[in-house]
Amino acid sequence: MTEPHPMEIEFRSDVTVELIRAAASDADVLFAARVSTKGEQSLDDVHADPARSKGLINYLMRDRHGTPFEHNSMTFYVQAPIFVFREMMRHRIASYNEESGRYRQLRPVFYVPAPDRKLVQQGKPGHYEFVDGTPEQYKIVVEATKRACEEAYAAYLEMLNAGVAREVARGVLPVAIYSSAYVTLNARSLMNFLSLRTRRESSRFPSFPQREIEMVAERMEAEWARLMPLTHEAFEAHGRVAP
Amino acid sequence: MTEPHPMEIEFRSDVTVELIRAAASDADVLFAARVSTKGEQSLDDVHADPARSKGLINYLMRDRHGTPFEHNSMTFYVQAPIFVFREMMRHRIASYNEESGRYRQLRPVFYVPAPDRKLVQQGKPGHYEFVDGTPEQYKIVVEATKRACEEAYAAYLEMLNAGVAREVARGVLPVAIYSSAYVTLNARSLMNFLSLRTRRESSRFPSFPQREIEMVAERMEAEWARLMPLTHEAFEAHGRVAP
Amino acid sequence: MTEPHPMEIEFRSDVTVELIRAAASDADVLFAARVSTKGEQSLDDVHADPARSKGLINYLMRDRHGTPFEHNSMTFYVQAPIFVFREMMRHRIASYNEESGRYRQLRPVFYVPAPDRKLVQQGKPGHYEFVDGTPEQYKIVVEATKRACEEAYAAYLEMLNAGVAREVARGVLPVAIYSSAYVTLNARSLMNFLSLRTRRESSRFPSFPQREIEMVAERMEAEWARLMPLTHEAFEAHGRVAP
Amino acid sequence: MTEPHPMEIEFRSDVTVELIRAAASDADVLFAARVSTKGEQSLDDVHADPARSKGLINYLMRDRHGTPFEHNSMTFYVQAPIFVFREMMRHRIASYNEESGRYRQLRPVFYVPAPDRKLVQQGKPGHYEFVDGTPEQYKIVVEATKRACEEAYAAYLEMLNAGVAREVARGVLPVAIYSSAYVTLNARSLMNFLSLRTRRESSRFPSFPQREIEMVAERMEAEWARLMPLTHEAFEAHGRVAP
Repeated sequence: MTEPHPMEIEFRSDVTVELIRAAASDADVLFAARVSTKGEQSLDDVHADPARSKGLINYLMRDRHGTPFEHNSMTFYVQAPIFVFREMMRHRIASYNEESGRYRQLRPVFYVPAPDRKLVQQGKPGHYEFVDGTPEQYKIVVEATKRACEEAYAAYLEMLNAGVAREVARGVLPVAIYSSAYVTLNARSLMNFLSLRTRRESSRFPSFPQREIEMVAERMEAEWARLMPLTHEAFEAHGRVAP
Repeated sequence: MTEPHPMEIEFRSDVTVELIRAAASDADVLFAARVSTKGEQSLDDVHADPARSKGLINYLMRDRHGTPFEHNSMTFYVQAPIFVFREMMRHRIASYNEESGRYRQLRPVFYVPAPDRKLVQQGKPGHYEFVDGTPEQYKIVVEATKRACEEAYAAYLEMLNAGVAREVARGVLPVAIYSSAYVTLNARSLMNFLSLRTRRESSRFPSFPQREIEMVAERMEAEWARLMPLTHEAFEAHGRVAP
Repeated sequence: MTEPHPMEIEFRSDVTVELIRAAASDADVLFAARVSTKGEQSLDDVHADPARSKGLINYLMRDRHGTPFEHNSMTFYVQAPIFVFREMMRHRIASYNEESGRYRQLRPVFYVPAPDRKLVQQGKPGHYEFVDGTPEQYKIVVEATKRACEEAYAAYLEMLNAGVAREVARGVLPVAIYSSAYVTLNARSLMNFLSLRTRRESSRFPSFPQREIEMVAERMEAEWARLMPLTHEAFEAHGRVAP
Repeated sequence: MTEPHPMEIEFRSDVTVELIRAAASDADVLFAARVSTKGEQSLDDVHADPARSKGLINYLMRDRHGTPFEHNSMTFYVQAPIFVFREMMRHRIASYNEESGRYRQLRPVFYVPAPDRKLVQQGKPGHYEFVDGTPEQYKIVVEATKRACEEAYAAYLEMLNAGVAREVARGVLPVAIYSSAYVTLNARSLMNFLSLRTRRESSRFPSFPQREIEMVAERMEAEWARLMPLTHEAFEAHGRVAP
């Protein structure tokens, strides 16, 4: 049993999303789609006619031919609070490796909402709208969150210091604590994730994501849009519905 | 916004696992397997020869013919701490619906280890052994856990009382808080879950589950063994490896 | 090596779809959905208010809450030509056990289109329309199909009679030969299958299924609609889009 | 309707497997695994100690930690007979795009076994052994296969020439006809595929793949071994069991 590390408690209001590795391009979609109709092709063929390429990707998206969007792969490194990972891991078409509270002492880094986080929920289930809280409400959130996280981490350290196993002691840690993970998925799976975890005017179907997972989704979307611009454009044009 | 409910804080050391609905029998395995070799069959055929049925199930398990074990379904209602659901939901071949901290106020029910929970971890990563803690250690665990959970729930209520959205306030709640979920899976998926989340002498491959998820797994296994006794026996006889 | 069976060649124009086993009802959807918002409930609760039940299922479908539709299971026994199973098994969220041409001699049962099968394809890829063929075209299809299937099966028998392994001899068998399989899936997966493999006026998204797999899909849909009438009605009302 | 192409009939005895695109290395495994225990790391860290890297991969394989082997991706272009794709597509943890007989005229390329293909099956189901056929048996296979394939393709062309839709006409084509597909999967999924579709002395569990799918599997394995040598070595060392 290693000695528990004394650590400075840290509060953050953001998330980390880094694209670690990618093999993902619009050409991958075209290749896979054209095997259906042509059987064989050359790379020249794919690059020959940009307008036709764009047209094909739009057609696939509109008519929901999903499989051509699967022959690619992106790996992200994500740091976010546990309550975000709880929602993320409900998406089963992806690969996850997350930091383990059984194998290591978790660091005292906790999420506290930024001042612009809408704190008040209105409306009825399934149609909640979020509006700004008052400065008093924000003050309460920050103070209550910080106090609770500090007390929880103190209780965690107390148990670790007494020689209690990490997996037992971690029970007291709040879901606002940050964890980190590698997340690997393909563009089709990512589109499904984005359709449910972002909220846009252009969305054909409604979605009501919690703001914090939407922050992760937005960062992933930005990376993906850079890698596969035609596919992203078609996704946007066709109502942000995963094909 | 409904008024937050004042609630009595409760501590538990157990898990709830109820079989809600099942369509799962050894005959389902036999039917599915025999379509490969016979094409057609009657139910008489399946019931005609118990010894042959047992032999066929054993053969399928031993040679890892997995798909015949998929034509069945079990739905469990589970109450367990969030840190257990975190591990459970890493298993992607299952269906989950979990209580939502966005839609309702979570109740103040928290996990605290029972006196016989082994509290001390020894050995190196991947090969941890757990041994009994001292009474002093147990006292520290109980007191630190109770105190931290009470403080966290007070902070949660304080935010709810101030009109803060449930999804924001819940950040302070510890992973020891109980949640509940419906979990649906088939026997093949359950065997995979059991092979990784229980630890038995008869296991062909090592596994090092956290005790609390093993408690859920054991309860599921008991229900399943009653529904599909020949399959369970073959699983046990062949080293608890999912086919 | 058993002696190859001499068998009468048979031609069929239909498919067999039998519901073998089901644990699937609208109540399963309601139960699973309400765990999110209530945590606990009684069966009385579910049956108490039919109008509210219908409303909840409609809301889930419209807002694409998919997981509550997964806690159920249906097993079908299907007989269809291999070219239908080829398309069916592209659907990965289901369980299959199919008759094996490696383990048994395949029977000489072949698909030949019925007189009302539209034989002529018009339009461009992705937007094909099918129209009636002429009597002459139908005659050619029937004669060419029967002749080719008979010749293929004769070649198959010739190899089997010479002691050649079934898995080698089967290479000559046409994709019009019937196979049989057990197929198990849940309502969410079935809705996805139906959205892609049936073509209806009420469909929000276009689909262009081959008629023969649509015949299987229609039979599955009829069974499912009987088991889960509210869910089926909501699926139809919301454009036959899988949630 | 385009005019059916007159084409030279071709017979092949091999398969094509080309690695089209890969983002797969042993370092990806190490990165993903270390997030569990370290939370963060640098690339230097991964490359610093080759012996430790090898040890970690061996440990993950032996104790069946599967997820670290998922953060990578390989895309293969495969040409093989339909009966091979039928088996391949039973593997659901992969992405497929296959040439479509609905959208294009299939080319007359057919599989005929090579002279060294063992043609005779002995033993009982589940434990078949294959042994060499006699020259007479081989002659029968080649002649019966060629004749049946030629007759089937003639029937196919006859229907196409009469203006019948490709999806109707293709019913007569034998499962020995070649198709082509893009197949994308990760190393964990590939190991599962290899464990079931290759037969080696070093295998801990028995498997009885048809030789033709094993030819595809062997070619994929060779490419993968080059990309991820430590992972491949660990797979081999631990009995070719997918973790």
